[in-house]
Amino acid sequence: MTEVGRLYAVLSILEWDQQTQMPPGGAAARAEQIGTIYTIYHEKLTGGQTGMLLEKAASESPAPDSDEAAFIRAARHDYDRATKIPTALAAEVARHAALSEGIWRKARKENDFGSFAPSLKKTVELSRQMAEHYGYQDDIYDALLDGYEPAAKTSEIAAMFADIKPFLIDLTQRIVDKSGGKKATIPGDYPTAKQAEITKKIVAQLGYDFNRGRQDPTTHPFCISFAHGDVRITTRFDESYLQGALYASLHEAGHAMYEQGLPEQWEATPLGEACSMGVHESQSRLWENLVGRSQPFSEWVLPQLKEAFPSALSDCTVDRYWRAVNNVEPSFIRVEADEVTYNLHILLRFELERELLAGRLSVDDLPEAWNARMAEYLGIRPATDSEGVLQDIHWSGGSIGYFPTYTLGNLYGAQLWFAIRRDLPDLDSQIRSGQFADILTWLRDRVHKHGRKYKAADLIAKATGERPTAEPYKKLLSEKFGELYGL
Amino acid sequence: MTEVGRLYAVLSILEWDQQTQMPPGGAAARAEQIGTIYTIYHEKLTGGQTGMLLEKAASESPAPDSDEAAFIRAARHDYDRATKIPTALAAEVARHAALSEGIWRKARKENDFGSFAPSLKKTVELSRQMAEHYGYQDDIYDALLDGYEPAAKTSEIAAMFADIKPFLIDLTQRIVDKSGGKKATIPGDYPTAKQAEITKKIVAQLGYDFNRGRQDPTTHPFCISFAHGDVRITTRFDESYLQGALYASLHEAGHAMYEQGLPEQWEATPLGEACSMGVHESQSRLWENLVGRSQPFSEWVLPQLKEAFPSALSDCTVDRYWRAVNNVEPSFIRVEADEVTYNLHILLRFELERELLAGRLSVDDLPEAWNARMAEYLGIRPATDSEGVLQDIHWSGGSIGYFPTYTLGNLYGAQLWFAIRRDLPDLDSQIRSGQFADILTWLRDRVHKHGRKYKAADLIAKATGERPTAEPYKKLLSEKFGELYGL
Repeated sequence: MTEVGRLYAVLSILEWDQQTQMPPGGAAARAEQIGTIYTIYHEKLTGGQTGMLLEKAASESPAPDSDEAAFIRAARHDYDRATKIPTALAAEVARHAALSEGIWRKARKENDFGSFAPSLKKTVELSRQMAEHYGYQDDIYDALLDGYEPAAKTSEIAAMFADIKPFLIDLTQRIVDKSGGKKATIPGDYPTAKQAEITKKIVAQLGYDFNRGRQDPTTHPFCISFAHGDVRITTRFDESYLQGALYASLHEAGHAMYEQGLPEQWEATPLGEACSMGVHESQSRLWENLVGRSQPFSEWVLPQLKEAFPSALSDCTVDRYWRAVNNVEPSFIRVEADEVTYNLHILLRFELERELLAGRLSVDDLPEAWNARMAEYLGIRPATDSEGVLQDIHWSGGSIGYFPTYTLGNLYGAQLWFAIRRDLPDLDSQIRSGQFADILTWLRDRVHKHGRKYKAADLIAKATGERPTAEPYKKLLSEKFGELYGL
Repeated sequence: MTEVGRLYAVLSILEWDQQTQMPPGGAAARAEQIGTIYTIYHEKLTGGQTGMLLEKAASESPAPDSDEAAFIRAARHDYDRATKIPTALAAEVARHAALSEGIWRKARKENDFGSFAPSLKKTVELSRQMAEHYGYQDDIYDALLDGYEPAAKTSEIAAMFADIKPFLIDLTQRIVDKSGGKKATIPGDYPTAKQAEITKKIVAQLGYDFNRGRQDPTTHPFCISFAHGDVRITTRFDESYLQGALYASLHEAGHAMYEQGLPEQWEATPLGEACSMGVHESQSRLWENLVGRSQPFSEWVLPQLKEAFPSALSDCTVDRYWRAVNNVEPSFIRVEADEVTYNLHILLRFELERELLAGRLSVDDLPEAWNARMAEYLGIRPATDSEGVLQDIHWSGGSIGYFPTYTLGNLYGAQLWFAIRRDLPDLDSQIRSGQFADILTWLRDRVHKHGRKYKAADLIAKATGERPTAEPYKKLLSEKFGELYGL
């Protein structure tokens, strides 16, 4: 498994280099290099001995709560998912994803859903076939979700989402009514070099270890891990919009601190990985939103930002900064959405994915279904499919089942946050004075160090004392945005 | 073979990232990642099918001068060298090299040859064993040389080296007598950022294609290729010594333009590689010394340097610049040596390597042999082993047989240069006006595009019309340094 893990790390290095360093001329050969390593990775994972060794290990019956048993469960999960798909289908899926992404890029650019529809139909059909091979008990969506949120149940997620949906629609509407479209901003000129410097300085103070990482600029920010000692993040810079880089950095550093805190003794094995995509997103959202968009954090960070950008921010008050980074406004693009409306974007996608997969919605009817739900949930209707159904890359690549993990991250994050607040009564004053070590230590002990030992819901229950629910999240939003917008 | 080639490219990417980007914490895992890929690379190269396929291909008897026949010869060469060494010996060599490098670093730092001597004895002994497995006809040194300069004969190289040795000793002595220790320099303050910018601008004008490459800072400059479309260089900056970065960039760009000109249709195969290390070095030295340290180049480049560094260079004349970049002075450290004395450093190492390998010199007597020869060839005697026998990394890693390729590069380079001059009568005025395209096209046609199709000596003969000799090199140095030093 370690050999498989190292090969996966090498794939990640090739990917990182491609996104951050590679000259344009290297693209064709890079695809070949990635293909070569991926083939070997897949052969090693699924090849002759793995299944036999896993059975042999399981037959030694390690204690169910031991690391060894957890290792076998995690390895078994990955092995099963990799071997259940017939080679011909896997090849077709890979080929289709590669073609489909190009078609989607063109369609989005030209606002032409019709040209993408046949690809998406095939994606849905292939996803159904994959799901049948993976197998499921209650809901075909479970089989796909399991690839991102192992062992999660669609029914449980749907119940939580049903709980927050009317709450979010109502909260959004009340904010819109109250703000009257007035936007809180901190306009100014923020030179890229200074942004790069200050964002690094800030995430280093949060606890992202640059001795085991680095930050580079890319079009789309991401975090990627090659090893316990090498976890890299990227961000993007807009010289007129400081928040873009700053909160992307906080978000990716949240992911990265999780990876830097995974159990080193299980590095490059399934047990040394993150618990789930939802738990991963809980870490990035916690640092980005619950720490980074809090009032105490605003008090702490603003003086540093003023020092870096005196001409843009010298007159900015903490209150104005805090309001600017928490501005709520229904908008079309998910990745630019605020803390309140973001999850409505996700709910919409989750619902549409389930309906597509179950055959209750046809691809041809998808754009209208999208637009109708945008109007219903957010009160706005996209004028074009490019800013509607065509905006995300996920469906082009075949990643059906991924979207709900974003909202799970927000729910888990809020639940963890109340548990942290319970255990650290002076949390606000710690943040106000730039002390983040206790927060990070708490997360290390309750979340990071367990790697993939537990199911996500069990990990959250162990960490917080309660099974995952949407209550903490609703409470948090009600309190914060109630205060911000005087609701 | 393409799969093997892609795996080798991936190893190179891991290496480049390690040298230029990796945070310190990534080192341990990187060693594991490299180990994983190297093992697979070696298995794929030497594994079950390769030998059989090579025999099958050879049995189809392609015309001896065809690309196909050359492909088989090159692949056979690599396969044979990889398979002739028993696994146990290969493992011991790798283990010893890893240990030995650490011991050497410590010994060099502490000026303690005694602590390195046992390692070096073992390196010599292992090299002898390797050579016996590789096999040879005339000279045991041939077997090691063949790893860097395929099919080259030690006897032929020794003959050329014997030809230049008295010439170089005499030329060095006459220059020292004439200069009286007076040093030509261009002191000043050269900010790193400006050096990075101007060196990129200059190598781009020479013909290094940044669309298929990039330049980064490292402790030791190098060139590394991942593909026809991705060939990267590095350089190092010293803010008080402009020449360091500029000529390292020219040198590495020379290597890189060769790699960028290799036959694209044979990418990632043995035929798509460089002919030999000697031919590689001929390209770097040609651009660094024969173009870059010429009088016409000085005329062309100085105005650009003045624009970049006005305060340091505003008073500098072309003549002063030209003399500064051609200052000759016996010194202890090979990598800092000038164009005249450099090869005496190599000759000394070549002689000592041959004597060690043949058992005519013992490791214990090596420091004294080194120092005595330094005194004889260069007229100076190292005060410490750190600036003598301990200075190079090569012997720590087991690279016996590599050194002569540096001087072969200088000889080949000079011979190519006279052929270029013959074919391009207005060469000097082309360089003076910054036109390098004809030089590069000449090298592309005569050297680069052939990849590894010919033996080095045959390639040079085809390109220049004459078998390799030392005459052009002696003529070139006599003319240039005769003029510079009024000899």
